[in-house]
Parts: sequence; structure tokens; C-alpha cells
Amino acid sequence: MGFADTPQEQLDSELLTDFATMSAFGETPRGGVDREAMTQPDVEQRRWLSGWLEERGFSVDIDRVGNQFGTFEWTPGAPYVLLGSHMDSQPLGGKFDGAYGVIAAAEAAWRIKRACDESGHVPQYNIAVVNWFNEEGSRFEPSMMGSGVYTGKLDADTVLKTEDLAGVSVAEALEDGGFLGSGDGPQAAAYAEIHIEQGRILDEEGVAIGLVEATWAAKKYHLIVHGDQAHTGSTIISDRHDALLGASHLVVLAREIADEFGIHTSVGQLVVLPNSPVVVPREARLHLDMRSPDSALVEAADARLRERMRKIEELAAVRIEEDTAHQWDLLPYDPRGVELSRRVAEDLGLSHRPIMTVAGHDSTNMKDIVPSVMLFVPSVDGISHNEGEYTKDEDMCAGVNLFTEVATRLLDGALDE
Amino acid sequence: MGFADTPQEQLDSELLTDFATMSAFGETPRGGVDREAMTQPDVEQRRWLSGWLEERGFSVDIDRVGNQFGTFEWTPGAPYVLLGSHMDSQPLGGKFDGAYGVIAAAEAAWRIKRACDESGHVPQYNIAVVNWFNEEGSRFEPSMMGSGVYTGKLDADTVLKTEDLAGVSVAEALEDGGFLGSGDGPQAAAYAEIHIEQGRILDEEGVAIGLVEATWAAKKYHLIVHGDQAHTGSTIISDRHDALLGASHLVVLAREIADEFGIHTSVGQLVVLPNSPVVVPREARLHLDMRSPDSALVEAADARLRERMRKIEELAAVRIEEDTAHQWDLLPYDPRGVELSRRVAEDLGLSHRPIMTVAGHDSTNMKDIVPSVMLFVPSVDGISHNEGEYTKDEDMCAGVNLFTEVATRLLDGALDE
Repeated sequence: MGFADTPQEQLDSELLTDFATMSAFGETPRGGVDREAMTQPDVEQRRWLSGWLEERGFSVDIDRVGNQFGTFEWTPGAPYVLLGSHMDSQPLGGKFDGAYGVIAAAEAAWRIKRACDESGHVPQYNIAVVNWFNEEGSRFEPSMMGSGVYTGKLDADTVLKTEDLAGVSVAEALEDGGFLGSGDGPQAAAYAEIHIEQGRILDEEGVAIGLVEATWAAKKYHLIVHGDQAHTGSTIISDRHDALLGASHLVVLAREIADEFGIHTSVGQLVVLPNSPVVVPREARLHLDMRSPDSALVEAADARLRERMRKIEELAAVRIEEDTAHQWDLLPYDPRGVELSRRVAEDLGLSHRPIMTVAGHDSTNMKDIVPSVMLFVPSVDGISHNEGEYTKDEDMCAGVNLFTEVATRLLDGALDE
Repeated sequence: MGFADTPQEQLDSELLTDFATMSAFGETPRGGVDREAMTQPDVEQRRWLSGWLEERGFSVDIDRVGNQFGTFEWTPGAPYVLLGSHMDSQPLGGKFDGAYGVIAAAEAAWRIKRACDESGHVPQYNIAVVNWFNEEGSRFEPSMMGSGVYTGKLDADTVLKTEDLAGVSVAEALEDGGFLGSGDGPQAAAYAEIHIEQGRILDEEGVAIGLVEATWAAKKYHLIVHGDQAHTGSTIISDRHDALLGASHLVVLAREIADEFGIHTSVGQLVVLPNSPVVVPREARLHLDMRSPDSALVEAADARLRERMRKIEELAAVRIEEDTAHQWDLLPYDPRGVELSRRVAEDLGLSHRPIMTVAGHDSTNMKDIVPSVMLFVPSVDGISHNEGEYTKDEDMCAGVNLFTEVATRLLDGALDE
């Protein structure tokens, strides 16, 4: 197949070699990566990406919240087609989540730049590769932080003051890592992102490409259970206000709601205070999320959660405070972007199907400000946020071929009105 | 009443003034203290105690695991009556727990020394005040660490290598604080300790002194729940191995067992890995304890726990590992010590009753190597391991009067065969 004058074998080899290089940043013994936002491996990989981009003639620009852009202008002053994803990972996460999307964007931009150099074609828009800051949200909350600021959904000053569990702020972490930039980054005309599915559908059906039509509806709660410290031994049971008992009932309730409504629910983070072996906990803070392709089910689950929370308060003699909650209904992607990708997949002879994303992505933010395309490649066994996450080489290569062609058409205004 | 030639008002005033000074080390806005072992406030209070002892003619000696002794010899080479407790606290703990016992010991020793100076009486044994290292066990596990080594129940080298959750070892912490000493401390002939009850009985019955006859039976488990990391959103429920769900079922089960058997149970510490808002936890580590005055009930509760753990493993698709477990049956104190204290209480006209201790104390260790006396003063509303912990001045003063007289008789061989 190839692209312009470069043979496919060489393109595949460039991609897989670069991806192997990236996977060494923060690599773990069991084949994953541990590369939370602005930890040393994330910083080192960002420096590597800056070098990669500059060597190939892209300018590197860091905005005020650490989003890393590699830009190339054919037409000074024209807006940009942004291509990207994120390079940070969960603790002991997989090497494909996010990183594959950034290298796909970089390779696509580099292929297109070479092709234009050769053909003399001048696209309608300029091009930018982006590595969004802190998509994962494991170190600094919330997730999708960099794209949240870029799209005006999060306040930059608030984000810069946000602290991790050790009390280090985003501003301090960016400053220490050398990635505290300035300004708002390049102006976008369109956005495209490719990502591993993180689910089983494409893998089980043997389909190469998922055309993302929508994001599942979700509700995410940050709950604080208030109890009172006491001695675990001497305090009689009826005197106890056990915050951990209340939190544990919430974790069990979340699973009961999943079973009752057929939705996905989880508690991923639980912080217990004071967390001493011999003290009944005074406070427990937890993140509970509920997701479904059916907004009505999420609403019904929310009602059940609230009803049962009152009972848990009685049962554990605690008070449950809803610190924050945010939610989204089923969020459609621009159908014209889905149709564009479908046509490209047809043209390239790649099997494809429409699909929904359960996880949020930076495109979840971007699609609200510019026409956006979201694409999936298969995840073997759907394993994700786990060192065992895996996508086959052939699927990675096919994804980049498709992504390059989608980007080419976006640069020529395929999604303009 | 007074002691020897010193009027009671002066003795009470010395005690309450010194206790107020101690309560300022690590004081919290809500009237408690935060003084975990070898944190800065603990180190500062220890320096203060060394100064207090030296000013009054005691020699200060630190043993190889940081136990702090203030000794006075009437007869060179004779063994010691040890009087003491601990000055470390839980995070946001109460100011009476442990600290009252150390100042009671110090005041008693000082009163006895003055009385002997005046009367020329030479007791049969020498005297030592002791502040045991890390009784609380919140920073370094297990609890009763210093007295555990002193009594040969814990291995000193193992203790010195024990790390807190931040990876700091006991040896490093003692070294940094200037309290890494050497040797095994003075040789004990008898031991006495006075402590707040940490329960409601004395307070509700209006009794001044609790004569501790035994420690409740207990079982303590360190459990590790093994799951597998996954994405909280995209992973289908049947694919999940949620370690936090398993741990939460254990917390709920612990309370169910408390209700079923009428015993005390609790989970005080829970550590979740990786503890990211969007990752199904791979591992959860928790401390579960069960206590009762009836050993048979604890045995029955243990059987129920083990039976239900297997069901929880199925329910949450996890594996529960029993990392460590330790237990003790109902542990009696030397009845001669109880009788000695009862007679002293009668002689001083103080109301008293036999009582059991639910919590462990350093005397729990000491009673196994030398004749030991354990005494309680009332805790208002039984509040403990909480900033609201409170004991009235009059109860503190009465306790020290009693304790001084008990110590005087121990020094003259009251519990010798």
C-alpha cells in the first residue's frame, strides 16, 4: 500500500520501532508502563517526542498547562488540524493506551509532510501533533485535564493549583519537569484521535477499525464519608461511626447497582483517614462511577444510589457528603466524521464497524469545539489499565494507515460545512 | 493527703502543669495531639522528658530500640521497679492515652525519691521511669513495639528494619530523631502502669480506679486481597477481579460478625493499589481485628470469618491471602498485683472495681516477665483514639496518688514471693 513514495514496509518499520522506543519509558517487568503525568518517565518521553518532532522539521510548543504540540505550517496564520492523544499512563498501566495515539499522530503528520514536500501539494490547513497533559487523571484529578483547559471546560488557574495526594501541584510538577509553557496552543480547525478500544468487541469480531459514534453516558461521584475516630478495640459497636464501614457499603452497593441495572460501575480510589490499624476511621473519600450506553439506566441507577446512600448513613452511623459529581449523557461524535472514516476504511479495504467508547478520551472534549474523528483499533481480550494490555502489530499498522488518510482529507477540509 | 512532706495541692499542681506542657507537643486545634512515633512532636516531647528527668537527678538511658528510661539507684546493681507507659499517639489522637501514664510514672518516681531523701529510707529495688517506643503501632507495625523487644517477644533486628508506609525504617527514624541508643535497658523486678480506661465503665459507674484483671481475647489479621487491574469504565463486570470489592465485603463481614457474636470487630487500615479513580484495584491490604472477653466467641467468630472469606473470594472473583494473624486468649494479670492495688485504693479511700482491658498495653508484654500491676482511671464517655478523649483533673490526680503508693510498696518487695 504505502503512502506517497514510501513503501509500506518502511512505514510499518518506522512506526513499530518508534513505538518500541516509547514503550521503554517507564517500562515494567510485566510488559506494561508506569508513567503517570510528569513523573520522570513521562518527562523523559516528552523530551524524546520533542526531539523526534524537531528532527523532522516540526516546531515544538508547550502551552500554559503542559500540552505538548508539534506544529508545521504550510500557510502562515491558517488554523490547524490537530492529531493526537496522550502519553501519560495509569500506575502499572498498559503501553498502548494513549501512547499509540500520539505516535500514530506523529507518524501520520510526518508521512503527510513528506508527501506534500514531494508532490508540492499545499493543504488547506496547517498540521499539529498533540500530546495532551494528564489524560489519565490518576495523579492529578480530573482526567482529560490538558484538553479540558484547551477546550475551555476547565479553568487553567484551578488546574495549575490542583495537587496530587502528596501535595505537589500541577504547576510545580510542570515547572520541575520543564514543561510549564505559556499561551493557549495552536488554533484547531478539526481534531482526530486513534486509540485502542479497551474493550473486547473488535477483537472478538475480528474487525480492524472501530468508528466511534458516541461516548457512553456516565455519572462520576466524589463522595466523602464522615465518621468519628475511635479505638478499634475498646469502643463498643453502638458507639462507632465507622467511615470505612460506610465506604465499604458504598463499594458493595455500586456492584449491586451494576448487577441490577446491567451497567458498569466501579470504585477505583478510596482514601481512608487516619488509616491506622487500631483506629476506627474518621473519614473515607472515594470515587464512584457508573456508565452505560443508555442514559435512562444511568439516571435510574443514580436514583437507586441516592436512596440507598441514606440507608447506609443509618446503618454505619455516618454522614455521606457528595463533594462533586459530574455526568454526561450519551455523547455523539460528529456523524460526518464517522462517515468520513467509514469511506476511508472502505477505500483502504479495512474491515470496520460503528462502536461506542465507554472510556472518556481527549476527543470527548475536542468534539465539542471542532469537527472531530475518533477511531479504535482492537485490544486483545479487552484488557486495559493493566500491564497485559495488547494490540497486534498488524492492527497498529493498519490503524496508522487509516489515520493518515483521514488526516489527509481533514487537512483538505473534508469536514468543513 | 499529700505524700511525705509535700502538700497535696502542690503535688496536684506539679502533675497538671507538667501534663499541660506535654499536651502542647503535637497539639491539634480540637484539643487532641498528633504525635506518632518519632515524628517531630514525639521527638521534642522525648527531649523534654529527658530534661525533666535529669533536672530531678535521674539518669537517662536509651536502649537499642528507642525505649527511654529515667533511672535512679539507691542500691548499685539492684534490679528496678519499672513505672511507665508511652508518649506516642495515634494520628489526631487524644492527649491522655499513654502520656498520662508516663507523667504519672515520672511524678510518682519523683515523689518517692524526694520522700526517701527526706526519710533516709532505702527501698529494696531501684526505680526507673520508662517511655516505651511506638506503643500505638500506627506508623510502624506492630503496636507495643518497644516493650515487645524489651520482653523478648519481638526481635530487635526485625523491628529496626520495619518500615512505615513511606518506606522509612525504625532504625532511620530513631537515628534521625536522636533516640537510637544501645543495650537492653535496666533489669526489671516489677512493673506498674496506669492508663485511661478508653471505655465507659468507670465513668458511668462513677468509680475512680479500675483494677485491671485481664486483657480481652483477640485475633488480629493482616489480609491481602488479590485482584487484577482493569479500566473502571470499559471492562465488563464479569471480567473484573476487583480487589476493593473483595476488601469491602470483608469490612462489611467484620461488622456482621460483631453483631452476630456480640464481640468487637473492626477494620482500621485499608491500603488500595493502585488507587486511581479510573482503575479497578489490583490489590487491597487490610487489618481486621476481633476482640471479646470470651475466647470461645473469638474462636467461633474466626471460624465464621474463614467460612465467609471463601464466599467473598467467589463473589468478587479475588483471592484472599492471610499474610499474618496473631491472637491471644484472655490474658490474666497477676492476681497479687490486683490485690495489692485494691488494698492501696482502700487505704487511700478511693472507689475501685475490677475491670478488663480491651486494648493492649505495654503491661500486656511486661506481665509475662515480671510481676505487673495495671490500673485505669476513667475516660469520659469512653472516647479514645480521638481528639475528644478526656479525663478529669481530679481523676488524674487520684490516679497518681494511688500509683505512687503502689510503686512505693513494689519498691519494698510487695510482690516478691
